[in-house]
Amino acid sequence: MKAYQLTAQTGPEALACIELPQPQPQPHQVLVRVRATSLNYRDLMVADGRYGRSPLPLVPLSDGAGEITALGEGVTRWKVGDRVAGTFFQGWQAGPLPREVSDTALGGALNGMLAEFVALSEEGVVAIPSHLSFEEAATLPCAGVTAWQALVTRGKVSADETVLLLGTGGVSTFALQFAKMHGARVIITSSSDEKLARAKALGADELINYRTTPDWEKEVFRLTNKAGVDQVVEVGGAGTFTKSLRAVAPEGQVHVVGGVTGFTSDVPLIDIIGRMAVVRGIYVGSRAMFEAMNRAIALHQTKPVVDRVFPFAQAPAAYRYQMSGGHFGKVVISI
Amino acid sequence: MKAYQLTAQTGPEALACIELPQPQPQPHQVLVRVRATSLNYRDLMVADGRYGRSPLPLVPLSDGAGEITALGEGVTRWKVGDRVAGTFFQGWQAGPLPREVSDTALGGALNGMLAEFVALSEEGVVAIPSHLSFEEAATLPCAGVTAWQALVTRGKVSADETVLLLGTGGVSTFALQFAKMHGARVIITSSSDEKLARAKALGADELINYRTTPDWEKEVFRLTNKAGVDQVVEVGGAGTFTKSLRAVAPEGQVHVVGGVTGFTSDVPLIDIIGRMAVVRGIYVGSRAMFEAMNRAIALHQTKPVVDRVFPFAQAPAAYRYQMSGGHFGKVVISI
Amino acid sequence: MKAYQLTAQTGPEALACIELPQPQPQPHQVLVRVRATSLNYRDLMVADGRYGRSPLPLVPLSDGAGEITALGEGVTRWKVGDRVAGTFFQGWQAGPLPREVSDTALGGALNGMLAEFVALSEEGVVAIPSHLSFEEAATLPCAGVTAWQALVTRGKVSADETVLLLGTGGVSTFALQFAKMHGARVIITSSSDEKLARAKALGADELINYRTTPDWEKEVFRLTNKAGVDQVVEVGGAGTFTKSLRAVAPEGQVHVVGGVTGFTSDVPLIDIIGRMAVVRGIYVGSRAMFEAMNRAIALHQTKPVVDRVFPFAQAPAAYRYQMSGGHFGKVVISI
Amino acid sequence: MKAYQLTAQTGPEALACIELPQPQPQPHQVLVRVRATSLNYRDLMVADGRYGRSPLPLVPLSDGAGEITALGEGVTRWKVGDRVAGTFFQGWQAGPLPREVSDTALGGALNGMLAEFVALSEEGVVAIPSHLSFEEAATLPCAGVTAWQALVTRGKVSADETVLLLGTGGVSTFALQFAKMHGARVIITSSSDEKLARAKALGADELINYRTTPDWEKEVFRLTNKAGVDQVVEVGGAGTFTKSLRAVAPEGQVHVVGGVTGFTSDVPLIDIIGRMAVVRGIYVGSRAMFEAMNRAIALHQTKPVVDRVFPFAQAPAAYRYQMSGGHFGKVVISI
Repeated sequence: MKAYQLTAQTGPEALACIELPQPQPQPHQVLVRVRATSLNYRDLMVADGRYGRSPLPLVPLSDGAGEITALGEGVTRWKVGDRVAGTFFQGWQAGPLPREVSDTALGGALNGMLAEFVALSEEGVVAIPSHLSFEEAATLPCAGVTAWQALVTRGKVSADETVLLLGTGGVSTFALQFAKMHGARVIITSSSDEKLARAKALGADELINYRTTPDWEKEVFRLTNKAGVDQVVEVGGAGTFTKSLRAVAPEGQVHVVGGVTGFTSDVPLIDIIGRMAVVRGIYVGSRAMFEAMNRAIALHQTKPVVDRVFPFAQAPAAYRYQMSGGHFGKVVISI
Repeated sequence: MKAYQLTAQTGPEALACIELPQPQPQPHQVLVRVRATSLNYRDLMVADGRYGRSPLPLVPLSDGAGEITALGEGVTRWKVGDRVAGTFFQGWQAGPLPREVSDTALGGALNGMLAEFVALSEEGVVAIPSHLSFEEAATLPCAGVTAWQALVTRGKVSADETVLLLGTGGVSTFALQFAKMHGARVIITSSSDEKLARAKALGADELINYRTTPDWEKEVFRLTNKAGVDQVVEVGGAGTFTKSLRAVAPEGQVHVVGGVTGFTSDVPLIDIIGRMAVVRGIYVGSRAMFEAMNRAIALHQTKPVVDRVFPFAQAPAAYRYQMSGGHFGKVVISI
Repeated sequence: MKAYQLTAQTGPEALACIELPQPQPQPHQVLVRVRATSLNYRDLMVADGRYGRSPLPLVPLSDGAGEITALGEGVTRWKVGDRVAGTFFQGWQAGPLPREVSDTALGGALNGMLAEFVALSEEGVVAIPSHLSFEEAATLPCAGVTAWQALVTRGKVSADETVLLLGTGGVSTFALQFAKMHGARVIITSSSDEKLARAKALGADELINYRTTPDWEKEVFRLTNKAGVDQVVEVGGAGTFTKSLRAVAPEGQVHVVGGVTGFTSDVPLIDIIGRMAVVRGIYVGSRAMFEAMNRAIALHQTKPVVDRVFPFAQAPAAYRYQMSGGHFGKVVISI
Repeated sequence: MKAYQLTAQTGPEALACIELPQPQPQPHQVLVRVRATSLNYRDLMVADGRYGRSPLPLVPLSDGAGEITALGEGVTRWKVGDRVAGTFFQGWQAGPLPREVSDTALGGALNGMLAEFVALSEEGVVAIPSHLSFEEAATLPCAGVTAWQALVTRGKVSADETVLLLGTGGVSTFALQFAKMHGARVIITSSSDEKLARAKALGADELINYRTTPDWEKEVFRLTNKAGVDQVVEVGGAGTFTKSLRAVAPEGQVHVVGGVTGFTSDVPLIDIIGRMAVVRGIYVGSRAMFEAMNRAIALHQTKPVVDRVFPFAQAPAAYRYQMSGGHFGKVVISI
């Protein structure tokens, strides 16, 4: 079978398309014919080493969807032909975050989904909603579950709340869909008026161009009648964290999800105390969260926002496109 | 001013329309010109004594909306002309249920809203959403807040959940609106196909006529693929409680809200244990819950379901109409 | 190996001690040499059929502790010689109650622990605290975890609270230990002044003999200065439920755990509503709860209350002693 | 009456003892004869301007206890002779943190307790436990409630958890008492072996001298068998925050309470994400939390740790002693 491997952590240039033996499902494993994968900012960091050392060579990418083509011994949860996606962490089924869970992350500690076939534990895949194509379903495991855990599992977002979203990448577009699904008011930022217009079409209530309004946290206060927002999905990192914190209401929640602009921020502790903010790390999520999200997506016939689909042969180009930051929603690779 | 008083707890026949001195706002009170009130099942019980002994004569009804026409000394939260509704409990602002809170209930321990003017604590009124008429706003204090506390404050309903509603009275129609606002799937029961059709128009996903499907809890299991529902708003009481309990999923919640069919039920404890059900009493709610609900209602421009508006002169007819059970949503008395 | 089997659900008389082939650990299973087991009220119900139909013949008892003597293929969590107890549910590791979990209960749907050897999933055993004997550790899986889930996992008992316990059986003595461990005030009932004296020695703050004080819920109110208690661990069932409910404070919790006096109770729904009680079923618990409990037991060097230890040959006598209700704490069978 | 006033925010030198007219209780106020007050780090910051601008002249100090000597009109909650303490925030009774609550803080926005008499709202005082002297009770309002909110109200500390405490000031000694009261294991740091020995006498399980063990977060990992701690009460601020964060287990909680070493810290967001830490600001607490804490203190007959009591005439010396950092527990001024 064909697969990509990272041979060094020096960026997408180190991606090599090679021939590997097709994996065989071990007891309690399923063999998945991968039909599509998607990219996350984390995959860029894995590729260039900012995410820490990975075992090399590594089949990259955490996210993928496909169909089950063979069952290992003792598998009871699945049958051949089932349409599934892998879970980001193979070792987090339900309950609180286990210790050492990152040792079970696809496309990081373990080989990932950028391959024609993968063998995964029967506990490490979920059924995908029937109205989604494989390309759409491939967007769910990292960005979708992250947004769901933040706003729904932990944040328990409700219709009396206002949510602040930063930018229009994969996590933020899912967060926009989930926040609106739960009736919340959404304020979203972007550097592009065109992207803001697309966000509005997806349901965003208030738009802020952070290029023309650099003090956007003050605009958030104006838009909320000085109340501040109840929740922020903080994907920005160092460059936005303090503003996000200052944008929240008393007991407001800042879900720290990513760090597009860097991972070390000066934090004004006094601003955490004075408003009794809750700053909470979100590390993707468990299989149970993925399954709950899928129920909601199926009920609402939600379509993930796919910006562009690259063919398998152009996987490095997909990486470069993701790096450009020009996308709105998710970048997908079809296999 | 004119007001109705209950002179005995023998039913609506005991309602007398009389002339009372107009109340004067004491320090920290506001004077409200009541413009509309609404009826709840509880008011029928107050009228015929099933709700326990009330001080007589009693101005009945917990629910009403109007405008502030005068301020007592030291009032800082309001100004003349503000449109407000009273809170069901004058003594529950925020936080957990206080002890002896029923001693502060309007139209029960205290005189209520079926009067041209009432004087209330400035802490015992809330601003009403600007898109609502007084008739619409008068439906909120008891039925609206009860549904909100059940599904949102306590139940934290989310879009991966299924909610079961019983009938189409005031609490259930609010619960339907709030469940859909949060993206949940709704199954609703009624004895009338016509009412079910109206519920469908309001967003209900699945309809069960409990007259033609008396084993409706089994139908609920069928509709949920044997999963059961995540939450029930239990307004029925003795006649429905056991079925409601048996309709819930593992860790499902039964919000016990009312008892249209009686208040003493045989409870199969084993059914509570085996599914680890959470059976929770809901006693209207606090002012903070009312305010949160109003934010959501304003954002969504939600219109409460008003079945029929009676003029002040026909208040006893409004009682009798509420007793008939023929209404869908709320019965209102304009003043 | 020797084991007991229930050959019919007609009571302890149907227990037969027989010779069975020693089980072999399958992949991901461990073989446990059982050293002690303990009895719960549920085991009496399994034996006489009140717990529903079990597959026959059945090796009974959910609770047991021993040491690992062999490992199946692929086992990574354990080594030979580890001291372990089985989990009540083999299929509940963490997170919320799974569907159909009772199909994985030891000594009910599955063969249990009253045997010299059992083979269990490596996910279905927990390490036991080193300061406990096997006899002591054998008391933990059902009664200990039930009490822990009720008061700690769900109840989040704290030192400003008062807890009401009914009687001095296995669950109640554990609940007493856990409530005191968290600083709560404990009121306990019994029909025996001698048992009450033993409860006092274990830390109970207030004692009520329900024989001499049949209106014990009123005494609870007196002892709490009319506040009521914050939590009840309801083991009594039909005969006590209503009183327990009436003994709780606003927003108080009634953990429904068992039904020594029957499982169908008249429930006054109005009492649930008026105090906004939370009535919650507790169905033993997950492995994660068991592990959390063991950390606390190890830190505090807590000793479970073992009333009496029967030798393996006298297992039927142990059943009859448990049936007599004369025990204080747990009845154990050594193997 | 006599009172101290801050006439400038230039440090304790700006404290002036003057004669002021005795306040008269307004409607719904009580007059309190203050018998003792206590100091917090925040009071040093108010005195030297680091806490922001206060209205001058200002009677300082948030914490004080005394007895009620007169009642304003309409007071129902109290009688003359009741022993009470003021609440830190006069405007936070129950429920979530209100907006603009700091405008109601004693000894900050409002005049505080360093006076012979104060008039406070009847809603802004709590009864003090009868086993406490006024000096002991005066330590509760800020440091006690802060520790209680962190570990109990929000943290829901339990006996399977390990808590990390930094130093032995007022908040940390209360946190030590409350953590042990709930059965948790406590690791505490100090620069002084003598203080560590006193902490051990109060129940601390593990002691770390951070002077001799500057990488104390690694020692925490060693002591917890690489698990990390479940909760930290972070009083240190800039100098300790990152280490505290790195000391917590998956889903561990960092309660940000103060900033003895400064309020702006570099925060490694990646460490928040990877362990899904919860960093929560704690801003003293509500009256309801104060009352819950007092119930626990009364039940356990807990004695706050009073380091030293200064007479009223030596209030500036008390400030200087608090500034020295030499205290263990609380510094009190008797009036």
